Amino acid sequence: QYSTGVRRVTLIPGHGIGPEITVAVQKIFEAAKVPIEWDEVDVTAVRGPDGKFGIPQKAIDSVNANKIGLKGPLMTPVGKGYRSLNLALRKEFDLYANVRPCKSLEGIKTLYDNVDVVTIRENTEGEYSGIEHEIVDGVVQSIKLITEEASKRVAEFAFQFARDNKRKKVTAVHKANIMRMSDGLFLRCCRELATKYPDIRFEERYLDTVCLNMVQDPSKFDVLVMPNLYGDIMSDMCSGLVGGLGLTPSGNIGKNGALFESVHGTAPSIAGQDKANPTALLLSGVMMLRHLQLPQHANAIETACFTVLREGKVLTEDLGGNSTCSEYTAEIIRNLQ
Amino acid sequence: QYSTGVRRVTLIPGHGIGPEITVAVQKIFEAAKVPIEWDEVDVTAVRGPDGKFGIPQKAIDSVNANKIGLKGPLMTPVGKGYRSLNLALRKEFDLYANVRPCKSLEGIKTLYDNVDVVTIRENTEGEYSGIEHEIVDGVVQSIKLITEEASKRVAEFAFQFARDNKRKKVTAVHKANIMRMSDGLFLRCCRELATKYPDIRFEERYLDTVCLNMVQDPSKFDVLVMPNLYGDIMSDMCSGLVGGLGLTPSGNIGKNGALFESVHGTAPSIAGQDKANPTALLLSGVMMLRHLQLPQHANAIETACFTVLREGKVLTEDLGGNSTCSEYTAEIIRNLQ
Ligand SMILES: CC(C)[C@H](C(=O)O)[C@@H](O)C(=O)O
Ligand SMILES: CC(C)[C@H](C(=O)O)[C@@H](O)C(=O)O
Repeated sequence: QYSTGVRRVTLIPGHGIGPEITVAVQKIFEAAKVPIEWDEVDVTAVRGPDGKFGIPQKAIDSVNANKIGLKGPLMTPVGKGYRSLNLALRKEFDLYANVRPCKSLEGIKTLYDNVDVVTIRENTEGEYSGIEHEIVDGVVQSIKLITEEASKRVAEFAFQFARDNKRKKVTAVHKANIMRMSDGLFLRCCRELATKYPDIRFEERYLDTVCLNMVQDPSKFDVLVMPNLYGDIMSDMCSGLVGGLGLTPSGNIGKNGALFESVHGTAPSIAGQDKANPTALLLSGVMMLRHLQLPQHANAIETACFTVLREGKVLTEDLGGNSTCSEYTAEIIRNLQ
Repeated sequence: QYSTGVRRVTLIPGHGIGPEITVAVQKIFEAAKVPIEWDEVDVTAVRGPDGKFGIPQKAIDSVNANKIGLKGPLMTPVGKGYRSLNLALRKEFDLYANVRPCKSLEGIKTLYDNVDVVTIRENTEGEYSGIEHEIVDGVVQSIKLITEEASKRVAEFAFQFARDNKRKKVTAVHKANIMRMSDGLFLRCCRELATKYPDIRFEERYLDTVCLNMVQDPSKFDVLVMPNLYGDIMSDMCSGLVGGLGLTPSGNIGKNGALFESVHGTAPSIAGQDKANPTALLLSGVMMLRHLQLPQHANAIETACFTVLREGKVLTEDLGGNSTCSEYTAEIIRNLQ
């Protein structure tokens, strides 16, 4: 799918702490001799011809040309007419599967030490359809849209992901006891795909039950696939189990492109102070390298990062350390083989 | 609201382990001299004139007469035409607020020891509207319905609950960044009620953020109020933090009635073997006694139950003990002052 040799990758530093964590990732990638040429673009909301704010055309063109991007946190201005730029990007490039692995990290102390789950989230429809009406004064409906097409492709993605990554089980997470038709359709699509992947165990669980079991014993789960909103919740919850959004990567994958991003916020209160933790963006970059079929580079960077976290001598403040983002970055580079 | 003297309470033992845990609760209540007369009714799905399965009229009449009930787990037969009887009861009596307290219990070892949260869930609409359509083949919509009326009354319930129970903070949980109109309306109703309860702190948080923060540090939260589905998830998750559905109570409260219930399943595999844990139903009964303004009886039973759990000598198998339901029940009775 991707050219060998030097890959051109769209880079969206984003806002707040985005630029400084992006520089950190670029430095580490450069030290690891990753064959990437960055195509840096700005994604600040611009007003389109329809009066609505959206993604600048230059950014769209860049992702369309490169088909792959790495992105920091984006600020969505508050107010009418603004849509989340994060969501707009997923929609624009039809990035239908959101992949969020959460694995316990040595050196990061949480209540859990046995988490190793991957949330695969349908990324284009469901509760995120954006279709809402006020029927009469004080009565509002929001439409959750589930299609066979989108459900099948994300189900297929989940099973193929499980197979490619030598994982054993896919759990479909749903509330088909309540939303019998919509979640029912999603579930039927998962069941159908399950028959095509007899090497992968398949199970179905209610969302509420999964939430309960996950906090009690995350080792019960492996790969999870679910509609959009459930994935939003579940991925954040799992991230919490292993240390939070500053440490967990995310990839949005489509047929014609892929965008890897840290999903934490812009942290304006510490922006520009060299205090930010670049780990989530770095590990998103590592996911991207695997996607680009550069596993050696991915492994080298991941190992260096995990070593620094495990040793715990050079950590940013959010992890209880007193090092700067630059010092943490330099320490990872020092650990590259 | 309720007569003093002997209260008549509808009792719905339910299915599976329901009858045996119900007997346990009855025995403990009797030993504690609770002034209650039980009006026992069966709630097995019956086919109504419309061909659909529903709640038997006798049960409806009983709750309508007594305005208060205690209920064990119900089995909903699988298949077309069956609706969840649990949901049907909430709907039938317009039990608009579902209250689920989760508090760490001494003697119950989990990863958390500082949980003390109460989920207040809107119980009548939202994602549970039951309105769904297949628009064209393979395209389904489910309607999430949010009304000002239902949002305001549950918000008011939450603030009043906080005040009555000397709690400090109410957190409104939402995804108004995505469902701007529906969750937006819910949130505005919470904000409006907040102004009428200046003694209670109010905050708004995204559902995904609450999930993440809850597993990292539950002590950040106090009373939480939210739309139906979010409450379903959050209450199960919080229950998981303190030991699971076998230990946490639930109350469904409306203007004209209230139904307290254990929300665990019917556990058919152990039914009839005197192995079931009656704690969730018992503590739901304790909530009911407080609602009936019988705080002394409530406190005596709760204290006895907590003592037995803390001492850990007589526990059912699900809690790692080897006592029967009857032995556990007798031990609680022995501990009643
Ligand atoms: C920023 C927000 C719109 C987004 C979402 O709800 O999907 C975020 O929570 C995420 O998970 O990427
Ligand atoms: C049994 C089921 C329909 C119900 C729900 O989804 O509300 C249950 O999970 C609950 O929380 O009481």
